[in-house]
Amino acid sequence: MLARACAQTHDPGIRYLRGNLERVRLQASSFDLVFSSLALHYVKNLGGLMSRVRRSLISGGSLVFSVEHPIYTAPSSPRWRTASGRRFWPLDGYLEEGPRSTDWLARGVIKQHRTMATYINMLLRLGFSISEVNEWGPTRSQRASQPGWADERKRPAFLLVAARR
Amino acid sequence: MLARACAQTHDPGIRYLRGNLERVRLQASSFDLVFSSLALHYVKNLGGLMSRVRRSLISGGSLVFSVEHPIYTAPSSPRWRTASGRRFWPLDGYLEEGPRSTDWLARGVIKQHRTMATYINMLLRLGFSISEVNEWGPTRSQRASQPGWADERKRPAFLLVAARR
Repeated sequence: MLARACAQTHDPGIRYLRGNLERVRLQASSFDLVFSSLALHYVKNLGGLMSRVRRSLISGGSLVFSVEHPIYTAPSSPRWRTASGRRFWPLDGYLEEGPRSTDWLARGVIKQHRTMATYINMLLRLGFSISEVNEWGPTRSQRASQPGWADERKRPAFLLVAARR
Repeated sequence: MLARACAQTHDPGIRYLRGNLERVRLQASSFDLVFSSLALHYVKNLGGLMSRVRRSLISGGSLVFSVEHPIYTAPSSPRWRTASGRRFWPLDGYLEEGPRSTDWLARGVIKQHRTMATYINMLLRLGFSISEVNEWGPTRSQRASQPGWADERKRPAFLLVAARR
């Protein structure tokens, strides 16, 4: 999740550590980039982690992360449905934040559903400024070349956010 | 849509004008607040309007607006559905931006569907900073007191954004 602040330390290497995101301690003003890929929607105390991440960044440093999109994590039954010959994503529970149990790789994997507004406002209140938001789905041509992606422009699967301290 | 820059002009009055948002001209650096309520999702050239709005604001001035939420404007058939005894919002077309024809007050009312990312990134690229985002739905107690709102926490109906020049 963490890239060393190479510009500051003149250390071209990357050191890999393993830790629990619920309580990892990070050195203050030590990183020019914090990057996370599809991990933060499993973290319960995301506000605590983001606060520690912010302190760990140098001034002007960047936070870039992806999570499962809130539209993807919200539903009580996250499987495509068909009605009147059309397939759609059965959205419910969007404003009800909290755990969702899913069977993915293992049974009973717990994700934390949060709204888009919660992700964005959490960063703003911690003093980040938002640089860009991306609700990822395949392009039309990517979808055309991948039969399994037929429905993937009906709702975004991933949310990507770039922010700056 | 526009509040006069009273602090600048020492004019306590509000003057109401009527114009077409697709081509309204606004005086540069003239307003400390631009406010819009449930209008911008009818505007085709929103980038053009927001660019003119930005120029019309004083430095540090605020833009505050509400629109129908992208989750609300996206579906090809925006009506609650029931499957396996549960009611849900049939989301499709979220990533396909463009016109949606609905029958509301009159037949064939055209809204412009845009994603959350498009609203936010449009403002960022124009040089706004985002202050707060709100995906509005009733609170649980409001829902309990309004039988017609039984489903209104399943998806947000409105998106509210506050931004600053």
